[in-house]
Amino acid sequence: MKEDGIGPGQIIRRTGDGVLEYEHDELTVEEPLEIRIGDKTVATTMRTPGHDDELSAGFLLSEAIIRSGDVIKKFSRPTSARNRENIITVHLEPGVKPKLKRAQRFGTISSSCGLCGKENIDAIRQSFPQIGSTSTRIDIETLLRLPAELRANQSEFARTGGIHAAGIFDFNGKALIVREDIGRHNAVDKAIGRASLDRKLPLDRHLLVVSGRASFEIMQKALAAGIPIVASVSAPSTLAMEFARESNQTLIGFLRPPSFNIYSHVERVVLEEA
Amino acid sequence: MKEDGIGPGQIIRRTGDGVLEYEHDELTVEEPLEIRIGDKTVATTMRTPGHDDELSAGFLLSEAIIRSGDVIKKFSRPTSARNRENIITVHLEPGVKPKLKRAQRFGTISSSCGLCGKENIDAIRQSFPQIGSTSTRIDIETLLRLPAELRANQSEFARTGGIHAAGIFDFNGKALIVREDIGRHNAVDKAIGRASLDRKLPLDRHLLVVSGRASFEIMQKALAAGIPIVASVSAPSTLAMEFARESNQTLIGFLRPPSFNIYSHVERVVLEEA
Repeated sequence: MKEDGIGPGQIIRRTGDGVLEYEHDELTVEEPLEIRIGDKTVATTMRTPGHDDELSAGFLLSEAIIRSGDVIKKFSRPTSARNRENIITVHLEPGVKPKLKRAQRFGTISSSCGLCGKENIDAIRQSFPQIGSTSTRIDIETLLRLPAELRANQSEFARTGGIHAAGIFDFNGKALIVREDIGRHNAVDKAIGRASLDRKLPLDRHLLVVSGRASFEIMQKALAAGIPIVASVSAPSTLAMEFARESNQTLIGFLRPPSFNIYSHVERVVLEEA
Repeated sequence: MKEDGIGPGQIIRRTGDGVLEYEHDELTVEEPLEIRIGDKTVATTMRTPGHDDELSAGFLLSEAIIRSGDVIKKFSRPTSARNRENIITVHLEPGVKPKLKRAQRFGTISSSCGLCGKENIDAIRQSFPQIGSTSTRIDIETLLRLPAELRANQSEFARTGGIHAAGIFDFNGKALIVREDIGRHNAVDKAIGRASLDRKLPLDRHLLVVSGRASFEIMQKALAAGIPIVASVSAPSTLAMEFARESNQTLIGFLRPPSFNIYSHVERVVLEEA
């Protein structure tokens, strides 16, 4: 018995019938990641380790600090720092100038937001082009299959524990990339980052499916990757809906088969069932 | 029928039996709030409007920018700015110097994190004193009542929709403050901010109950308010558990009656049932 009654890696569980058990518990790993461009710190984010290169690429892209994954030459870790696994340096191709001013407009901080350091939403809306009109549409049957597809592509631990997932799917419901993270935004950054490193942007014939809620920032990240449809298994916010309507994105919420809601640009969904 | 097929305030809902209905939907409001001290922007956060004074106070406190709610003289809104309801200025008592350097160490941004602009976790751990040992303990019966008490103190909308809640309760299970927000962190900032403005800190005989997950940052905010017990209805992260163990906080997760887990400092819970 340790000082606090609970040893390392140990927890106490009260079961449904009131029994107290000492157990080992698997928790979602949360560690900070400092993202650098050259010797300059761009951001520090709390993330689940793994796919840090994708996370960095997706973050830089969706913050409009870089315009394409193509400008990334390589990634490296510091050779000597303590916690070197929590620091990643992004090396850009010669001559590429990151738009750090855009992200660091105010040099501010934030507890939970994605607008940190930005004066207002208009500025962000203007950072990325609207989605163009697309003739391709998704049908309801495919849409309803996506939450199960997302889960099928997650790890066993994720299906049971507290971790967010983001998946990029084509209009036939085929998964291109599925990523997980303790942070909703990070899961999206990893998925978009992978696609950008694979030079698959814009993803104009794909959907983004998220396990959490659809906030303004999720829509912004999808827009940065040119994704026309975002589907959330949970609730969108007012600002997410407004953003989607203005940026010509289709926003689907509460995607819980057999039901769902459409909040904007219904023209990309085939409403008539076959 | 509007250009995108969905009018303002309107959504399309596919019901369980496959019927498509046009409906009005109540969404959680998400708007940015810019927090200023004097003429300096300290942070911009995405929040649900309401209790902005509490949110600002709680944020400044849990970021260690101010040490106490007592140093806040008043709050004001800009007289002329567009979106004035999304800007709040905190006026400090004469002679009080906010620790802006602490928060703006790197002047960085972040997509989702609470460590933004901070070099490492050690720095944050050192920002607040450990929780002292307390002789008061909470019993299991009271603990199991808390999720229902939290819900009972939430709005009707919150009980059905996607909004987070944070509540401060005494060891008898009586609610002191319950606040809601689209952001987990903001809900906690509002609750702690209210308590600090009412000069009730440190809350050393209270618990913080959160509807979402217990991340590192939630523990940090509780520590800033001197709260010895944090109970989450969902999963904690590894870092939340480590932080709780080091800062002498009791961390309870998956509080879903009749079961729950204890991750640290079990000595504050009366495990024997009456």
